[in-house]
Amino acid sequence: MREVFQEQLGKLADELASMSTMVGRAMERATKALLEADLKLAEQVIEEDVQVDEARARAEEHAFGLLALQAPVAGDLRTVISTIHAAEDLERMGDLALHVAKAARRRHPSAVLPADVQPYFAEMGRIAVKLAGRVRSVIQTQDVDSARGMEEDDDEMDDLHRHLFTVMMSPNWSHGVAAAVDVTLLGRFYERFADHAVSVARRVVFTVTGKMPTS
Amino acid sequence: MREVFQEQLGKLADELASMSTMVGRAMERATKALLEADLKLAEQVIEEDVQVDEARARAEEHAFGLLALQAPVAGDLRTVISTIHAAEDLERMGDLALHVAKAARRRHPSAVLPADVQPYFAEMGRIAVKLAGRVRSVIQTQDVDSARGMEEDDDEMDDLHRHLFTVMMSPNWSHGVAAAVDVTLLGRFYERFADHAVSVARRVVFTVTGKMPTS
Repeated sequence: MREVFQEQLGKLADELASMSTMVGRAMERATKALLEADLKLAEQVIEEDVQVDEARARAEEHAFGLLALQAPVAGDLRTVISTIHAAEDLERMGDLALHVAKAARRRHPSAVLPADVQPYFAEMGRIAVKLAGRVRSVIQTQDVDSARGMEEDDDEMDDLHRHLFTVMMSPNWSHGVAAAVDVTLLGRFYERFADHAVSVARRVVFTVTGKMPTS
Repeated sequence: MREVFQEQLGKLADELASMSTMVGRAMERATKALLEADLKLAEQVIEEDVQVDEARARAEEHAFGLLALQAPVAGDLRTVISTIHAAEDLERMGDLALHVAKAARRRHPSAVLPADVQPYFAEMGRIAVKLAGRVRSVIQTQDVDSARGMEEDDDEMDDLHRHLFTVMMSPNWSHGVAAAVDVTLLGRFYERFADHAVSVARRVVFTVTGKMPTS
């Protein structure tokens, strides 16, 4: 019974790891589409989002199966419920990459971002992709230190996000209201992507240590 | 066993209904604080958000208890897992009300919103509060028609949200970039609040009918 449970839990972890890869790749491509006004790449991200939704539905079904057949208790039960939460966070990360891709498509062939904020988004994209990769590794290794380390990447994301506001509020901002609206929304998408990645990592910490990290 | 399960499930539904009341009231006050630059009210919402977080933790603990002690399967299992998701959505709705209150506090004693967009936010606030009330009633009655009806309120919210962009992009927008950034973020908070309310309602439909409504 125990062995079957561990094996099924391992498969569930693999599914979540694979979702991390999918959403990391989606955000990488969406960022490239955004920075290079690449319509084809944006459309690819938009089309492929359904795969993330399907992967989430499958993971949730497998978690249900585990609960129904194995009726885990205590720590095992928490672990399975964590996977359901993690699948939800990962699907949401996919949605946020989708939002970025849709912004790139909506403004095509124009660039969405004024040149002077592009480096911020290149950097936010880099951190987002890094976080998706770290989520993957944390899910597979259950490494608590690595999970905690993700908070630092998230702080970096928050700093960049705050800095965007400083840039837009500056008297030197010459790109008008429409660009500011786009930058505001896009900045929020990256920031939320990072929040969801950290939320998965925190649940891994909780599952392993029994304590929820305080933010 | 079955009776105990139903009784505990009823208690869990009461807890979620009470969370709906809390987040509806939070959004009502946050909107008032926003529109009337009422610092005291904003601070009340900010202080009270922890109560929503605590209610969510309690609901999740009770759901865990139900799963561990009763080991429900099939529809019963889905129902319990739905309550865990619903508690998460409701906590997030509380966070979004908190974000609105924080925006009101940040700009105090100035008003955050230019006078010409205030009516939109009054209306978005009204719909948000209405949706929280409908979520409460859907959780308690499991009324599928009422749950489906919430989609219309959500459409109304989306229309208002889209209209905000039209207002900001218009050449008549005379309030500059800073106000546009605030309006963009605040608009998104209301829209997401409605999305989470609808997400709870959809899970109720799924629990009752076995089919997830397509958006």
